[in-house]
Amino acid sequence: MKISELSRRSGVSIPTIKYYLRDGLLPQGQATAANQADYSEEHLRRLRLIRTLIGVRRLSVSAVKEILSAITEEGDLHQIFGIVIEARPAKLQDKQKQEEAAAQREESPGVTDAHKLISKMGWDVSPSTAALYALGDVLDALNDLDSDIDWQSLLPYARLADRISELDVEKMHGTSGLLELAERAVLVSVLLEPALLALRKLAQEDKSARLFSDSPDEKEAD
Amino acid sequence: MKISELSRRSGVSIPTIKYYLRDGLLPQGQATAANQADYSEEHLRRLRLIRTLIGVRRLSVSAVKEILSAITEEGDLHQIFGIVIEARPAKLQDKQKQEEAAAQREESPGVTDAHKLISKMGWDVSPSTAALYALGDVLDALNDLDSDIDWQSLLPYARLADRISELDVEKMHGTSGLLELAERAVLVSVLLEPALLALRKLAQEDKSARLFSDSPDEKEAD
Repeated sequence: MKISELSRRSGVSIPTIKYYLRDGLLPQGQATAANQADYSEEHLRRLRLIRTLIGVRRLSVSAVKEILSAITEEGDLHQIFGIVIEARPAKLQDKQKQEEAAAQREESPGVTDAHKLISKMGWDVSPSTAALYALGDVLDALNDLDSDIDWQSLLPYARLADRISELDVEKMHGTSGLLELAERAVLVSVLLEPALLALRKLAQEDKSARLFSDSPDEKEAD
Repeated sequence: MKISELSRRSGVSIPTIKYYLRDGLLPQGQATAANQADYSEEHLRRLRLIRTLIGVRRLSVSAVKEILSAITEEGDLHQIFGIVIEARPAKLQDKQKQEEAAAQREESPGVTDAHKLISKMGWDVSPSTAALYALGDVLDALNDLDSDIDWQSLLPYARLADRISELDVEKMHGTSGLLELAERAVLVSVLLEPALLALRKLAQEDKSARLFSDSPDEKEAD
């Protein structure tokens, strides 16, 4: 298809497509004439993925470039999933190196507690996965605030997160093709994040209305 | 206590405390002499809350100011919870006005679907709650991407979010005092957000390793 059709079907403007082409985010089309090229369905799919990552998830162009080039270099679904969730699971040859680095790095008490939680849940994750440190940061912050919420009181949350991840991977079935798999992984893992946070807030508001609201008149009978 | 002790106990530097005092984020202490003031435990508690909101949740000073002043103006826990989760539930006198405004606003298909999901879950939420529109945006994006994930396939997630919110409100019990309640609401609702996302990613990585990894050698027996 021509760039005009690619633009129409993707909803991305022609100048933006040209910018992505110049920047290497989108591979060049098949040249058909001077200043004219032919684009495939693969281009369309990739463009939609770029639009989602940049437009919906507000990632930077360079972050999207990194994700896309990593996807192209990697083979299996576990690697793709890892890239998408920033886990970057180690390949066999890198794993020992990674573990040594992790062992040498000085860990905050929160990260140590995060390891305890992961071990208790029996989760098989890379020792340098980004989420481990994110969890550790929260545990450190809770501790700094003298909160009574520790890694053990997060276990019920971890069990629910485990069930959420089962729903997530179910949604990956029936998908094939590297870019399609990557798109699906982005969709399920990254795009559903704000949906999950929104669902939790809605449920919190409901519980709060039922339990804490002083004025029963405020509630409606619908 | 003097500002030096306030700094030591909160972990916030004296220049930063002075900046918060000038900016009205932190109320002035009791003046004891020229250029000297006495600060209470309430100041310490508020400073820790500010540090969490700015340092851990990366909110702007003006966003924190808005939250803190809203907390001071509001009375009951439901209102505080609403402010913290950006729901800003309507008071009785505002509710009808809000519903009329919501009815007039043109809704995207995603927001209409978000209403369906909320109704199906039986959640009692404000018609203009921020999370409703956040959920609607995701549903619109999924639709734009020709995804087969619609509001009905999000219902299992909504049920798990409902159970998460039950854990959340459980953590609010046994708390009293407006600032303490607000601190707790921030902690549970806002500070636990990155922890939940991290837990989901860890669980995803585990499922991905078990289901999608091609090389069983990569897994370890620990």
